[in-house]
Amino acid sequence: MAGPAGSARTALALFSFDATGAAKSYELLDPAQPTLPVTELATTRGDGIFEGIGLTNGRPLKVDRHLARFAESARRLELPAQNPAVWSAAIHDVAAALDPSPEGWIKLVLSRGDEFRKPGGAGIPTAWVYGTVAPSLQRERSEGLRVVLLDRGYRHDVAQTSPWLLQGAKTLSYAVNRSAVREAVRRDADDALFISSDGYLLEGPTSSLVLRVGKRLRTPRTDIGILAGTTQAALFEWAVTAGYTTSYDLLTPDDLAAADAAWLVSAVRLAAPIRAVDGIPKAVDAELTAAANTYLRTL
Amino acid sequence: MAGPAGSARTALALFSFDATGAAKSYELLDPAQPTLPVTELATTRGDGIFEGIGLTNGRPLKVDRHLARFAESARRLELPAQNPAVWSAAIHDVAAALDPSPEGWIKLVLSRGDEFRKPGGAGIPTAWVYGTVAPSLQRERSEGLRVVLLDRGYRHDVAQTSPWLLQGAKTLSYAVNRSAVREAVRRDADDALFISSDGYLLEGPTSSLVLRVGKRLRTPRTDIGILAGTTQAALFEWAVTAGYTTSYDLLTPDDLAAADAAWLVSAVRLAAPIRAVDGIPKAVDAELTAAANTYLRTL
Repeated sequence: MAGPAGSARTALALFSFDATGAAKSYELLDPAQPTLPVTELATTRGDGIFEGIGLTNGRPLKVDRHLARFAESARRLELPAQNPAVWSAAIHDVAAALDPSPEGWIKLVLSRGDEFRKPGGAGIPTAWVYGTVAPSLQRERSEGLRVVLLDRGYRHDVAQTSPWLLQGAKTLSYAVNRSAVREAVRRDADDALFISSDGYLLEGPTSSLVLRVGKRLRTPRTDIGILAGTTQAALFEWAVTAGYTTSYDLLTPDDLAAADAAWLVSAVRLAAPIRAVDGIPKAVDAELTAAANTYLRTL
Repeated sequence: MAGPAGSARTALALFSFDATGAAKSYELLDPAQPTLPVTELATTRGDGIFEGIGLTNGRPLKVDRHLARFAESARRLELPAQNPAVWSAAIHDVAAALDPSPEGWIKLVLSRGDEFRKPGGAGIPTAWVYGTVAPSLQRERSEGLRVVLLDRGYRHDVAQTSPWLLQGAKTLSYAVNRSAVREAVRRDADDALFISSDGYLLEGPTSSLVLRVGKRLRTPRTDIGILAGTTQAALFEWAVTAGYTTSYDLLTPDDLAAADAAWLVSAVRLAAPIRAVDGIPKAVDAELTAAANTYLRTL
């Protein structure tokens, strides 16, 4: 069991489903115990979706944005539609079960379920909400990241021409995303930034790209096979109130080189400045980074 | 528990590891019981590899070929090297635990392990061998498959230019492979056949392509980001003894249209003839199909 509220390093809510495959209720379980059989399709095929939600002092950040993107990923993978209220309740219960901690994160997973056992009938998924306290990522936020540009292999229009490639859905099939980070480390960097096979900037393996050019923030258009960044979107809303203009553009490595500053932004690490691209140093905007992250923690 | 030998529909061997991350021993467990925590990286990131091995009357087919490809996949994902003898023993024990059945299959999985719990220290993977009896696939082998050509989005040279994309490794990140089959079904077909973004025939989501032109069998070159087919390789060895020539080529949809016959070949379904491509009927070579599958079951 997860133990009394507020006394665990990790917590887990596992869902039960109605006949449509929508989660209807959950129980809190011990995350250290085995929960899944080896015939689970999340495990054998990466056939499911997820979201990662940041926790600040135990409070889950921008839950509604994550649940909206989760619904879009489910649609692209033809997984059963979910009731956001049930998931939101589980997210808050899992968050409340954790030790008080400045930082942590929550993961939502919805998969196509067990390949064979169908206790609720065909098409019944598997789903859970997992939470953990986490070490501080303040160093990445203040010192910044060295990134390398890596070809993702797809043209920038692939989500339109070949929707079965699931670009723009947050699937559990992340072996390539992890391989890209290993390649970055091999090149003495901290993270990767994908480019399309036809030369456009895309996103990091677990983050969105934001550039600053004067008082303008730019990010890649979300129709080019990338995830719509929940943190990037929130950052842009705040930036407008802080006197910046914002735009969604087709961007190239030259745009990154010419930008005054750049960040990889994501739900848990928040805004992490890019301090080098392919070994070439890049100026860090410490002031805007700090202001953005202060804001992002209030959401 | 898997029960007495030869009395189960499914069976499972779960490995323990030495300090290098090589499997050293295993225990037989009940596959219906939960085995994996939700922090397993096979589950949360599709970060691991697999092989599927056909069973004929309880006998696992061409185990050595599968273990050789498994080792190559492990190398590409930087997973710990394994001892084939330990895996082979588990494969045969799992096979022996199953009900006598004309058809079945075994899956090998090796993942990067639990994201957090490291009972054996950092870098200790998770691994198992799962087996099941299965319904006969004789209908697919005799009637054949309707396939549709789907763009995989990658150029044919992507494995050379961008090895971090893991093309040619058999990873657990198969969401796209499953999405492609759903797209095929949507188009009133049975299976997909991937083509590269620059127009070369690749492979099916779970199979290799073989064409027959007169007394010559052709298959796509294995250096174009596809899996080296274990069943295709065995088929080619047999074909030479049966009077055919064989070749590994860059092939296009025109080559498929012009071929006298074509198959999707794989370890469990074996050689399944293609009877239509994008709705255009294709002649089925029933005689060669039957002879090939008789041979493939003897391996």
